[in-house]
Amino acid sequence: MSEELSELARRRGFFFQANEAYGGVAGFYTYGPEGAALKRNVEDAWRDRFVTREGNMEIDSPTVTPEPVFRASGHLDDFDDMLVECPDCGESHRADHVVEDNTDVEDAESVPTDEVEALIAEHDLVCPECGVSLVGQPVEGFNLMFETTIGPGDGDPGYLRPETAQGMFTEFPRLKEYARNQLPFGVAQIGAGYRNEISPRNALLRTREFTMAELEFFVDPEDDGPNLDRVADVELPLYPVEAQQADGEEYLRLTPQEALAEGVVAGEWVAYFLARSKQWFERVGVDMDRFRFRQHLPGELAHYASDCWDAEGEVGGDWVELEGVASRTNYDLTKHDEHADDSFTVFQAYDEPKTVERATVDPEMSYLGPEFGGDAGEVADALADLAARDRSAFDGEEVTVEVDGTEYTVPTEQTGFEVAEETESGRHIVPHVVEPAFGVGRAVYTALAHSYETDEVDGESRDVLRLPAEVAPTTVGVFPLMDKDGLGERARELAADLREAGLSVTYDDSGNIGRRYRRQDEVGTPYCVTVDYEALEEGAVTVRDRDTTEQTRVPVEDLPTVLTRLRDGDASFEEL
Amino acid sequence: MSEELSELARRRGFFFQANEAYGGVAGFYTYGPEGAALKRNVEDAWRDRFVTREGNMEIDSPTVTPEPVFRASGHLDDFDDMLVECPDCGESHRADHVVEDNTDVEDAESVPTDEVEALIAEHDLVCPECGVSLVGQPVEGFNLMFETTIGPGDGDPGYLRPETAQGMFTEFPRLKEYARNQLPFGVAQIGAGYRNEISPRNALLRTREFTMAELEFFVDPEDDGPNLDRVADVELPLYPVEAQQADGEEYLRLTPQEALAEGVVAGEWVAYFLARSKQWFERVGVDMDRFRFRQHLPGELAHYASDCWDAEGEVGGDWVELEGVASRTNYDLTKHDEHADDSFTVFQAYDEPKTVERATVDPEMSYLGPEFGGDAGEVADALADLAARDRSAFDGEEVTVEVDGTEYTVPTEQTGFEVAEETESGRHIVPHVVEPAFGVGRAVYTALAHSYETDEVDGESRDVLRLPAEVAPTTVGVFPLMDKDGLGERARELAADLREAGLSVTYDDSGNIGRRYRRQDEVGTPYCVTVDYEALEEGAVTVRDRDTTEQTRVPVEDLPTVLTRLRDGDASFEEL
Repeated sequence: MSEELSELARRRGFFFQANEAYGGVAGFYTYGPEGAALKRNVEDAWRDRFVTREGNMEIDSPTVTPEPVFRASGHLDDFDDMLVECPDCGESHRADHVVEDNTDVEDAESVPTDEVEALIAEHDLVCPECGVSLVGQPVEGFNLMFETTIGPGDGDPGYLRPETAQGMFTEFPRLKEYARNQLPFGVAQIGAGYRNEISPRNALLRTREFTMAELEFFVDPEDDGPNLDRVADVELPLYPVEAQQADGEEYLRLTPQEALAEGVVAGEWVAYFLARSKQWFERVGVDMDRFRFRQHLPGELAHYASDCWDAEGEVGGDWVELEGVASRTNYDLTKHDEHADDSFTVFQAYDEPKTVERATVDPEMSYLGPEFGGDAGEVADALADLAARDRSAFDGEEVTVEVDGTEYTVPTEQTGFEVAEETESGRHIVPHVVEPAFGVGRAVYTALAHSYETDEVDGESRDVLRLPAEVAPTTVGVFPLMDKDGLGERARELAADLREAGLSVTYDDSGNIGRRYRRQDEVGTPYCVTVDYEALEEGAVTVRDRDTTEQTRVPVEDLPTVLTRLRDGDASFEEL
Repeated sequence: MSEELSELARRRGFFFQANEAYGGVAGFYTYGPEGAALKRNVEDAWRDRFVTREGNMEIDSPTVTPEPVFRASGHLDDFDDMLVECPDCGESHRADHVVEDNTDVEDAESVPTDEVEALIAEHDLVCPECGVSLVGQPVEGFNLMFETTIGPGDGDPGYLRPETAQGMFTEFPRLKEYARNQLPFGVAQIGAGYRNEISPRNALLRTREFTMAELEFFVDPEDDGPNLDRVADVELPLYPVEAQQADGEEYLRLTPQEALAEGVVAGEWVAYFLARSKQWFERVGVDMDRFRFRQHLPGELAHYASDCWDAEGEVGGDWVELEGVASRTNYDLTKHDEHADDSFTVFQAYDEPKTVERATVDPEMSYLGPEFGGDAGEVADALADLAARDRSAFDGEEVTVEVDGTEYTVPTEQTGFEVAEETESGRHIVPHVVEPAFGVGRAVYTALAHSYETDEVDGESRDVLRLPAEVAPTTVGVFPLMDKDGLGERARELAADLREAGLSVTYDDSGNIGRRYRRQDEVGTPYCVTVDYEALEEGAVTVRDRDTTEQTRVPVEDLPTVLTRLRDGDASFEEL
């Protein structure tokens, strides 16, 4: 983000470092009035797209989370960054960043810590802060979760959630009831996440507290996928593994159906959400000429994920991760099913009950007991397992099973082996998860960067945010030509009427009209309405378009409808 | 809250204890899909009332906050509850609750800890958990802020904010710029707050993580107050200190103007916000027959507050605090002005520049230096202070000032004392704060409790939530009479059209119509639309009203408008 835009963000109240009056702490930002409104509009557009229109559910779960949840999810063990501390100045650095910034090694994050230590030694790397050598300093994992204590005394350890997703996973036993046990269904959440970054940087791009919008979409992998006709005309700019490995910068431009047919994207739901994501990013102001979906490289892929694509936006020459669409298999729910005291499976009824053959045993314990003594029970269990697994093992006269390394042979006739037909009405499955996970602050930041322009109007330079009308903090600025002769009263009345119609309105009567236009251009207000003397006489006002600076006259009584249609994209300014 | 309603809240997805699959931890709740929608609607109604319509600003600041902020605000020292630990079972209890629950002492919270220890001894109080005596156990302050560490290693201490308010105070130096330094102005925030309660209880009423909606309204106490005509017809149910002390249960019912004229409410802005608050609580479903404003007792009042009224709702026989409207004087900004590295004052221009007399000194340092040596500079400063404070001190031949306990006498003619006329265009003031602070979860909980009823329909008992249409999680349920002969397709189309019109819609085709109505009654859906055979022929559908169970037919093309008007309170069902 350019220095000009950062300055504008502070000066006009989009965002700024929090608590600067106390020196601030890196990685925490406050959204001022304009930024908070923009962020809320971006969130509302997300909710409209990924909750309401998809018929998904939305929940609101706490950020402080007890330890057993993160033991099950793996975050307690694995949610680490590599830390190296300077022996001289004591500053902590991300060891992988030190390596990446000073060697040819890419993706040092996936290199084991001892090899990173070796790379530091090999390249004789130094502290980026003070220049003292880091050779010989230990490189260690640092868990990125903020820890706290719940309750007085020793209390219970708790962590600020690093993602909203676990809320949807741990409450799955209830959520499936709300979905009446019908797969597929989706559960979403927009809320705070926290990562105790070692070196926060790049304003809203790597903060320690941030807002996420995540959808956990639960599917039966054997079920039909989505109706891809609904996104048939969306062209996805895809940057798959092969292209990255070939160092190509050309993207494939494929529809979801083409991407599936060509095997570029493996899963139908992933392809569907890539298309919906692209539509959404365009809607909130990300420039589609500076946007792509990059597939995770094999080393980058989380161990549970079978495929993952990052939506990326280009800002200041760097590609910024805006969203990950991951096929998480049934990893999450399986982990919770193992650790928690509840069921994370869904009963999937067959369309028709199925008749299945099932092999069972009913061993003669009066034979097994005397023969195998205290091991008889385990031998019986092993026979049952074997029957379910490989019924051909019971074809001969004898069957051999292994218990704790010892082999036991049993005459087949003593096993009570039998194959019987049974009727099954369905099966219990652990659903698979497809997860589109968005960083809201990053989307806001990228939309600002992509919509910021400096152009020339009436021979003067102006700063303008060409934000889409739907997400702009203010939809319409209302100005009296001057605050006299009843113009001010009329303009204030009009502002109140427009607010009543559900529009976001700013009233401004200070300074000359040109200056007031500039103020609104700077914060991205798409339309301005001026109440002049003709307005009092004729009942029509001047509406001015931010992007073209064109003006047109609109009857006052039509104004709420016209502005609402403009905001919602149901009309364009040129058509007025 | 009744057991029936708690069960309904869990079963239908309003709220439930978080992470129950892992046993849960007291004081953390998850809002399920219905509850999250209700809460969001309640928040939107708050934003509409206290931000949009008042022309205030809204910000979004982080929850993790560095220590210096809470040192300045006083939370580090004073944000304590009284803790007593059982010597036997080790359970921690709030000592003031143990005393209140077992003696006649009320408001034990404001009793010093040593006296609480004495009360425990006097009444021989025991552990509520195991019955072992608590006599002799120390009663100690326990700070209710969750603590964490920011950054790696020793890092910086950070706390989860116990209120959103400090965000508005610490960013005041910027916020005043956004308000162009014009008082009054208001800054609001809806967001998470955290209190590490010793004994969380009563579901959403005392949780460790909660959502607050706070407005900090900054005023110049010498300025004009609000236009009270706008709330002239609001009758406030007031329960002032005198009535409480007389143990009366009668409330005064006064308009804001009457309450001010009779001296019951001291401040105009407080009276104004009480009126707006009452309107808002009614709007979101709090029963006005179970609602009051209770004034803080002198012992209860925070040391910085000059007046405070709690909005209270009656739930299950107890009065629950829903909001506090406090006159916080200039305490907060003064504290930050002292501790932080920025200015928390606002320059208030006079209507006309004022001519003022100002007394100054210009001491003869060639006299003071030789006379007082190293103290000369401090003597000069003391003379300047004295001149500003009490110019009559310079009437005589000599002036005496004190520096660090030592008196210094200076001939008046050596002080350069002078009274001159100056023109002042305004003054720098530290604004006063009026703060309406709402607990969102408590409002949601009370609205649920007040709208829950069991009545009889067609000879059968039904559970119904009579939530206002504006905040109900779903506005309209759409049902095909049955899913055949094209009824299902038509109903799904209709549901899609209504969603497109911005309504919150549920589609349901399972079970008989009566059962589908009951399901919507239980979650408070105010209107249900049934698509039957006549609908296909005539193009009109049956709309059913939740509260009366009356039905009427409405042309399909009018449906979006009719339902929107019903939701927004612009029409009533009877008028259809």
